[in-house]
Amino acid sequence: MVPSDDVLRAVQETSRRFCLGVVGQGNLDGINRVYTADAQILPRRASLMNGREAIRGFWQAGFTALGIKGAKLATLNIEITGNTAVEVGEAELNLGENGSATAKYVVHWKQEDGQWLWDKDIWNIS
Amino acid sequence: MVPSDDVLRAVQETSRRFCLGVVGQGNLDGINRVYTADAQILPRRASLMNGREAIRGFWQAGFTALGIKGAKLATLNIEITGNTAVEVGEAELNLGENGSATAKYVVHWKQEDGQWLWDKDIWNIS
Repeated sequence: MVPSDDVLRAVQETSRRFCLGVVGQGNLDGINRVYTADAQILPRRASLMNGREAIRGFWQAGFTALGIKGAKLATLNIEITGNTAVEVGEAELNLGENGSATAKYVVHWKQEDGQWLWDKDIWNIS
Repeated sequence: MVPSDDVLRAVQETSRRFCLGVVGQGNLDGINRVYTADAQILPRRASLMNGREAIRGFWQAGFTALGIKGAKLATLNIEITGNTAVEVGEAELNLGENGSATAKYVVHWKQEDGQWLWDKDIWNIS
């Protein structure tokens, strides 16, 4: 099903919250409004992690260890089924003095508490 | 929604076809009964690829280059919505003399022509 404008807006709002709030301002509390309570992330070079606490810890360590200064997400395609969606996209990470890195990702979205949030998040590098 | 036994059986059958047929016997025609016509794969260390021809080419090269002798897939969780599903799993690859490798993956399943097939397939290494 082609996503409605309302869903696309909600999805963009969540992604913006991650890029500008969580990554851009280092606001890790923003994780709660990006990922579902039971979300799973499958990072490259790390084990699968479950739940917001673990995800918060992962990103906190990631910003420090990798020196991530900014992130831009670009949706390549998104398909909605009921109150879930699957997005394929590309992420560009600003690594400050270390240049940039490009990742590709799949996010499984769910509508939870009136918001569209990331329930599964996996990425790799080409 | 918890998947029904029928869906789980169909999903297991497709995964078995990939492991035993495509990988185990090198039957690349089996790709047509594993991936949807418009499937996308997001391999690590390679670009996103679209459609069965490209996917077939990727796996053909992969078997040769990486020396993949066998594969085992284990579902960690699967959620079904309508005629789609999202699976999180682990793959163990038998690399012959080079030992083995473990990957984690997310597959977006779709029911197409009466079969449950992989429409999006992304993986990475821990």
